[in-house]
Amino acid sequence: MNTLGEKLKLTSYGESHGESVGAVLDGFPSNFSPDLAFIQKQLDRRKPGQSHLSTARKEEDLFKITSGLFEGKTTGAPIHFSIKNKDSRPEDYDHLKEVYRPSHADFTYEKKYGHRDHRGGGRSSARITAPWVAAGAMALDYLKSQGIEIYSYVAQVGDLSMEGFFPEIDPKSIDASFLRCPDSELAEHMSVLIEEAKAEKDSLGGIIACQVHGVDAGIGDPVFSKLNAKLAHAMFSINAVKGFDLGGGFDMVSKRGSEVNDAFSFDQKKHRTSSNFSGGIQGGISNGMPIFFRVAFKPTATIGRPQNTTDKEGNAITLEASGRHDPCVLPRAVPIVDAMTALVILDAML
Amino acid sequence: MNTLGEKLKLTSYGESHGESVGAVLDGFPSNFSPDLAFIQKQLDRRKPGQSHLSTARKEEDLFKITSGLFEGKTTGAPIHFSIKNKDSRPEDYDHLKEVYRPSHADFTYEKKYGHRDHRGGGRSSARITAPWVAAGAMALDYLKSQGIEIYSYVAQVGDLSMEGFFPEIDPKSIDASFLRCPDSELAEHMSVLIEEAKAEKDSLGGIIACQVHGVDAGIGDPVFSKLNAKLAHAMFSINAVKGFDLGGGFDMVSKRGSEVNDAFSFDQKKHRTSSNFSGGIQGGISNGMPIFFRVAFKPTATIGRPQNTTDKEGNAITLEASGRHDPCVLPRAVPIVDAMTALVILDAML
Amino acid sequence: MNTLGEKLKLTSYGESHGESVGAVLDGFPSNFSPDLAFIQKQLDRRKPGQSHLSTARKEEDLFKITSGLFEGKTTGAPIHFSIKNKDSRPEDYDHLKEVYRPSHADFTYEKKYGHRDHRGGGRSSARITAPWVAAGAMALDYLKSQGIEIYSYVAQVGDLSMEGFFPEIDPKSIDASFLRCPDSELAEHMSVLIEEAKAEKDSLGGIIACQVHGVDAGIGDPVFSKLNAKLAHAMFSINAVKGFDLGGGFDMVSKRGSEVNDAFSFDQKKHRTSSNFSGGIQGGISNGMPIFFRVAFKPTATIGRPQNTTDKEGNAITLEASGRHDPCVLPRAVPIVDAMTALVILDAML
Amino acid sequence: MNTLGEKLKLTSYGESHGESVGAVLDGFPSNFSPDLAFIQKQLDRRKPGQSHLSTARKEEDLFKITSGLFEGKTTGAPIHFSIKNKDSRPEDYDHLKEVYRPSHADFTYEKKYGHRDHRGGGRSSARITAPWVAAGAMALDYLKSQGIEIYSYVAQVGDLSMEGFFPEIDPKSIDASFLRCPDSELAEHMSVLIEEAKAEKDSLGGIIACQVHGVDAGIGDPVFSKLNAKLAHAMFSINAVKGFDLGGGFDMVSKRGSEVNDAFSFDQKKHRTSSNFSGGIQGGISNGMPIFFRVAFKPTATIGRPQNTTDKEGNAITLEASGRHDPCVLPRAVPIVDAMTALVILDAML
Repeated sequence: MNTLGEKLKLTSYGESHGESVGAVLDGFPSNFSPDLAFIQKQLDRRKPGQSHLSTARKEEDLFKITSGLFEGKTTGAPIHFSIKNKDSRPEDYDHLKEVYRPSHADFTYEKKYGHRDHRGGGRSSARITAPWVAAGAMALDYLKSQGIEIYSYVAQVGDLSMEGFFPEIDPKSIDASFLRCPDSELAEHMSVLIEEAKAEKDSLGGIIACQVHGVDAGIGDPVFSKLNAKLAHAMFSINAVKGFDLGGGFDMVSKRGSEVNDAFSFDQKKHRTSSNFSGGIQGGISNGMPIFFRVAFKPTATIGRPQNTTDKEGNAITLEASGRHDPCVLPRAVPIVDAMTALVILDAML
Repeated sequence: MNTLGEKLKLTSYGESHGESVGAVLDGFPSNFSPDLAFIQKQLDRRKPGQSHLSTARKEEDLFKITSGLFEGKTTGAPIHFSIKNKDSRPEDYDHLKEVYRPSHADFTYEKKYGHRDHRGGGRSSARITAPWVAAGAMALDYLKSQGIEIYSYVAQVGDLSMEGFFPEIDPKSIDASFLRCPDSELAEHMSVLIEEAKAEKDSLGGIIACQVHGVDAGIGDPVFSKLNAKLAHAMFSINAVKGFDLGGGFDMVSKRGSEVNDAFSFDQKKHRTSSNFSGGIQGGISNGMPIFFRVAFKPTATIGRPQNTTDKEGNAITLEASGRHDPCVLPRAVPIVDAMTALVILDAML
Repeated sequence: MNTLGEKLKLTSYGESHGESVGAVLDGFPSNFSPDLAFIQKQLDRRKPGQSHLSTARKEEDLFKITSGLFEGKTTGAPIHFSIKNKDSRPEDYDHLKEVYRPSHADFTYEKKYGHRDHRGGGRSSARITAPWVAAGAMALDYLKSQGIEIYSYVAQVGDLSMEGFFPEIDPKSIDASFLRCPDSELAEHMSVLIEEAKAEKDSLGGIIACQVHGVDAGIGDPVFSKLNAKLAHAMFSINAVKGFDLGGGFDMVSKRGSEVNDAFSFDQKKHRTSSNFSGGIQGGISNGMPIFFRVAFKPTATIGRPQNTTDKEGNAITLEASGRHDPCVLPRAVPIVDAMTALVILDAML
Repeated sequence: MNTLGEKLKLTSYGESHGESVGAVLDGFPSNFSPDLAFIQKQLDRRKPGQSHLSTARKEEDLFKITSGLFEGKTTGAPIHFSIKNKDSRPEDYDHLKEVYRPSHADFTYEKKYGHRDHRGGGRSSARITAPWVAAGAMALDYLKSQGIEIYSYVAQVGDLSMEGFFPEIDPKSIDASFLRCPDSELAEHMSVLIEEAKAEKDSLGGIIACQVHGVDAGIGDPVFSKLNAKLAHAMFSINAVKGFDLGGGFDMVSKRGSEVNDAFSFDQKKHRTSSNFSGGIQGGISNGMPIFFRVAFKPTATIGRPQNTTDKEGNAITLEASGRHDPCVLPRAVPIVDAMTALVILDAML
């Protein structure tokens, strides 16, 4: 279904080449004056065409709020975000109508629904995340007013990975390059790697890491509504995500308990832990330490090369190379991770 | 909260040292005759003390169904599974009442609720998964009647890992050793590693992999109810789980799109993919290929060594070594992964 | 919250004098070609100004679907209905900003949210039901294709009430007069009564009855998801509704069991009941007989007379008579009851 | 399904003649010390056989809490209430196995599930409300600690009805007679009426009214989670309920707006309304006035006379008179209305 959250609910609608994409955010605190320019800024961070390496599609992604805001303040009523699809050229997709593109959702949508909007991926396009970014930006803004900061950043592209577990980062360094990797030297290498992949008409995967600072201990729920389970669930709603881990995550499986147990200490009238392999969450509930997790993105399925596959009837065909080929979507996915994280954290706090 | 699922809902209750632990399974198909011996067998796979390496706690874990079953068949009414806590020695835990054990949920429960049952971890104990295994075994049994088989197994302990991506396994090989690793040679090495860890009074993490065979294309939902998102959510409900990935997962981030795109082919009147880096799910919906995912477990937090930490008041203390120390819980966690997988898959099929 | 339904979810947004009102319908069957003219017709039945007796506000209520429909057929993706608020004159409401109108939701919204859009009732206006009518019309259309017909009609206005329990009605007679009462003679009396109330600048309540024909036995759920409970829940979402009863309802409380027990008979290979005091639902599940219920509407709170009340500060004030006074909203509420009924029935069938 | 509530969830299981009936209450505030004797007292008010007029079935209905309570205080973990079915004589029901009793749920369960526990109504028996009463009693107890009192009482039996709209009642008068009607004179007449019905082997319906005092303004939600919608939904979960109305309800439909509009006044620093036809709820949200609603019960379907009906195969049969015939269940239903009201109100407050 298309609604996420318990107390703060995000309902999504829209397709890549319909008239507009949108979302309804329900349960947002009343009496808050959102920074509309900040929302637009997050949308700008997600939009295609931010660098010469990115997809050709140009979208301005200007959002409109048509409800839930009165005299500049939220009313507690549901907030409707709407974004027009301007660069809509449905005829560009006629040749894909009967084709099952490799590692896209064409086949599975067809199997489930028997009828699909094939234009630009239709409902399965990452385009539908634009209004999520808008809604999430409002949540980010609210959380900031509560002393909570969320920093997502590109931690790995292809085999180029940031060093160290849970690094201290300077938030300002994230947007220092279009890569959104806070390690500026690594960002340059990544840029070269992406150039190469683009030249080879291929695509790259990578990892976005996220740190959440300022969440008090006691947020979240145990058992079936764990904060980490909800973060994982939300991240898997983002296109191309294939993995999620928290704190020490997959790297911790080869360690010993004595190496990665987070001992408690007491400092400045607060319980803390001397290490943070738990990633800020224990038993599904925040422990007051920074929340830290990683999201694995597969290489984008759309590449600039011809590919062998089949059509609906099962005929073997060669899929033309896509003209709109983005070799690495990770920098643009950073504000989506920001958004989904903010929505989950705020939901757990309400 | 303590209810999981949309159409098939599992509601959990109970604490480690209360009178009993239980679960209510709601939405299960009517008119099904469950194999009660199979349910007991799955519980036996989960129970402590299966090998000399495991925790000392002895539980028979005999389950009782007190509703939803009539004349041996399900009625469509909720099914209540109840399991007595026999080996309950609450007084053993008096010294932990005010202590925050490293990497346990003592502190976070205290922060959230202000009052907790500290005996054996109380509500945060893995003991509460026993009735989930019973409920999940009924789902496994039902899925089997629909031609669906779920095979979870230990794929890694410490740094000892099975070779190859998505290996073909012989289901019978899983329980060939108490390690539940289908690679018998590796299992022996793992056994030695666990002996060592036990001798060092330390604990090990690892990875459980799961393969689901026989799911038709078209199961699951897109966007916010993706089958992979629900699997991830369910897995993070299991104690000590810190990571989840699907198909190529984290290993795929350093690959190129051209390497890991799953091209469609057509064979025996069915669409298939020539590779399965998607792990059987595309756009949140099954594509008819085997579903394949991995679950990362951190090393058990309870170890046999004294540890430094603090109490509730913030005083530095030394936590005594635990006498009930299980160096590697992964083999026992296999039926829990089976159970949660079965519940998610069946939910998506209803 | 603003989402209703389990498998078929309706999410509502919008305020009386915002830019637009809308709804997202999620879970609707794919591959259905909705009759868009029928949707518009149901909206026209709801719109103000259908008779000289009705409110002065003129709205064309043209709907737009911006997602979930492709090449004239539903895709299984969420369907977004949007309706512009054209006759928006927010300045007309400036005098109400600090006033708590009698029997409106001004005070309670203020208490809950601390901030509200006061223009024309804002979020609490019946205007927000317009997109529900559009969404419900699509459900009505689908149900019709499954042999299910829903007939809502005005059964009582003030003290003028149709005779008899569960009368047989001719569906065509409902819209024979603007009153939507199938008893044409009674409709004339009702019309006179409304004229009188209008002249007296007062308002009238009444009862809308609903009959659902063609639902097979076995639809709905027992215990906490009873079909009648969900119908009641949905009806209470409509403004001014203060009562709901099923079958014999309140009139049955003074009867004996021997008088109102519905004995089963067997006819044309089907179990039927010889009477239908159960209103087509037993134990929360349809029994194959027509579903029959009544919805009680209080007299509209907005009247054409000055009224004494207080403002936000507690000062006694006299509220000016409203110029936009509709003495009886029941005829216009008929398509809303149609819509909510269709959504609940379809939800239970999925 | 069998779970009710948003933040406070009640999950129900059990059948009339299974081993036990039970419920899991999830989301209850932690750190509360419930009055267990009060819970037992509410169960005693529900149990059969309280007067010579009642059913012969004897149940002690002793409840047990097996989780969520530690050292006498709630922990925030789910609370499991269990009640044994002691007076279980399944063989008494063998003759009903193939029979569809008039106005029971035998037929609809059979149609939906194809298999049912026919003993004493199985899952459709009012017996399953016993643990709801226990869970609701804990909520009543908690609400009392917050200054909120809930008074349900029998307002009508057959055609004997209390006078006046929203009467002031003395809470102590409710249990002055076994009828739970606060008008002692009327209660005597009701008692005679029930004697008569019993002698005639017939059954009576009636109305239970409920008043909730002490709820602050601002509790509840608008649109699709209205407090009145949730109360209606919860009441329709009780067996034999066929109607619900709030405040002026059905009696208000024949009034004029000028008669029943609740004007605001300001007194003792609080907004109040001079009348309470709204029943304490406006726009789905409490307005600080007492909440007042009525619940209509049909005459009990089980009567002491033979009845004509059919069996599963459609054969006409004569159903034997029931030996366990309760001519009026309303007094015993009072604590169930108390319970469901408390659960809904507390849910809305969390």
